[in-house]
Amino acid sequence: MSEKSIEISEVGPRDGLQNCAAIMPLAHKRRWIDAEAAAGVREIEVGSFVSKKLLPQMADTAEVVAHALTIPGLTVAVLVPNLRGAEAAVEAGAHKITLPLSASETHSIRNIRRTHAQVIDEARAISALLETLPADRRPHFEGSLSTAFGCTLEGPIEEATILRLAERLMEAGCDEVGLSDTTGYGDPSSMRRLIRAVRGVVGADRLTGVHLHNTRGLGLANALAAYEEGITTFDASLGGLGGCPTAPGASGNIVTEDLVFMFEAMGVATGVDLEALIKCREIVRDALPDEALYGFTPRAGLPLGFRRAAQAAGSGSGA
Amino acid sequence: MSEKSIEISEVGPRDGLQNCAAIMPLAHKRRWIDAEAAAGVREIEVGSFVSKKLLPQMADTAEVVAHALTIPGLTVAVLVPNLRGAEAAVEAGAHKITLPLSASETHSIRNIRRTHAQVIDEARAISALLETLPADRRPHFEGSLSTAFGCTLEGPIEEATILRLAERLMEAGCDEVGLSDTTGYGDPSSMRRLIRAVRGVVGADRLTGVHLHNTRGLGLANALAAYEEGITTFDASLGGLGGCPTAPGASGNIVTEDLVFMFEAMGVATGVDLEALIKCREIVRDALPDEALYGFTPRAGLPLGFRRAAQAAGSGSGA
Repeated sequence: MSEKSIEISEVGPRDGLQNCAAIMPLAHKRRWIDAEAAAGVREIEVGSFVSKKLLPQMADTAEVVAHALTIPGLTVAVLVPNLRGAEAAVEAGAHKITLPLSASETHSIRNIRRTHAQVIDEARAISALLETLPADRRPHFEGSLSTAFGCTLEGPIEEATILRLAERLMEAGCDEVGLSDTTGYGDPSSMRRLIRAVRGVVGADRLTGVHLHNTRGLGLANALAAYEEGITTFDASLGGLGGCPTAPGASGNIVTEDLVFMFEAMGVATGVDLEALIKCREIVRDALPDEALYGFTPRAGLPLGFRRAAQAAGSGSGA
Repeated sequence: MSEKSIEISEVGPRDGLQNCAAIMPLAHKRRWIDAEAAAGVREIEVGSFVSKKLLPQMADTAEVVAHALTIPGLTVAVLVPNLRGAEAAVEAGAHKITLPLSASETHSIRNIRRTHAQVIDEARAISALLETLPADRRPHFEGSLSTAFGCTLEGPIEEATILRLAERLMEAGCDEVGLSDTTGYGDPSSMRRLIRAVRGVVGADRLTGVHLHNTRGLGLANALAAYEEGITTFDASLGGLGGCPTAPGASGNIVTEDLVFMFEAMGVATGVDLEALIKCREIVRDALPDEALYGFTPRAGLPLGFRRAAQAAGSGSGA
């Protein structure tokens, strides 16, 4: 029991905020990131280097990265859609960059006007850029397979397609691949099946993270299945921020607070102080008063006599 | 894949309605039960035989049972707190009666003013009553261990206490025991642990059902863990009806619609037509317009290309 642990990768400042109509001021982003890191979150996707016209919510990503880099021990992650974004990420000094590749080519073309081959070309170009950097300045490079569990335009995606794309991302120079259930189509069985299949192609150490949505309420059940398959990094968003604005409660990332509660209750250390994490909601609520915040644990509170796994494990990073 | 199946036990008309302030008229209860049975739900807990003063929502349980008994193939279940309730259940002709026993004695005394020993005495008296009936009129008798995963008054409950109570319920004449996470304190690990431990005492065929709440968002993850331990009957409430009125979204039974979606997506047949089930929400909404209905799947809709397990399995009960 005592040796089990997972990593939470908080994606609210990126995936959450880019799906909010309102723009969170830089000062609030800083406070939020500070508070989550202080609560024990060790990786935060703080923004994305994308067109400022398309996503004005992300226009200050370079400043956000600069601030996040001042926090000791924090892995500062960003999302990039292409080489240009990767150049900005490298210049800003991000520790980790993620390039999404939609397993559904229809979705890829509709969304970013790029075929699979074109995105793989970007991966290759980004990899070539990273090769030029000294080892201690080279960010970790992940290719993330989005819509991996199904697409709202194409429906189910052939497993063979996903395996081929995973292979091509690795050949293009990614350090690892990730699996994203962008649409909330995944279930515990498909989760297990696809994780095993992709690991069979790229190796278990090259698929360590999943990005899950709670669209149909299965987010934590899927996280459990992924954990039992050996996945160790879980994306999640504070308050499930970024839920679909046209269908309240129906969409969005899995809720960090509930995910932390599940693992801590199971005796799996997350390093996160849940009460401190729940307090971070106030910062988001203060900056974005019109955004719905999800999550069951913050409303219900912790069980009487609840002990976090970190205490049991004696890892003692404390709050 | 094709042979897997589980049973849904819809508890909305009992556990849902008894936690609503408003009283659902008998005609609506009938329509609701008819519609869910038509959607493929094969067991419904239609009410409880309790004090009409204490729970006026349940005052018409005898009439509801009489109606439910006219539906072919439906298992008509009721909850009873004592011998007197069991007598009424037998007279009404219920197929299954459940006697709750709170693993937390503090909770039992506070809630129904009875010690463990007194509830076990009721179980014995009920069992004696059932012994007098001809085999074909004898209802199935379950002792349900509530607050089994923790109590809001006592905190965690010693496993030894639960095992002893399970043993005493069986000795008192119950056909089987159930485990209830009344407080939403359970997690996938404690779920697995307690199911294994109780089955070790009573036998695997004497613990086949769990009653889960979604208080902290872990309801479906807990259901997944229970399923993987071999549990085959899952209580759930349409729309999660009966969520705590003072903390919207924070409490209540797991949502039947999301539970059915999870299992069907996994290829585990529930016998339920999910679209027909989702339509049942209109009946509840119509009767109880002020009650919040929960559930993610009804809002998000079914995935593009979704196929229910029953079709894959060729069981073809289909709607």
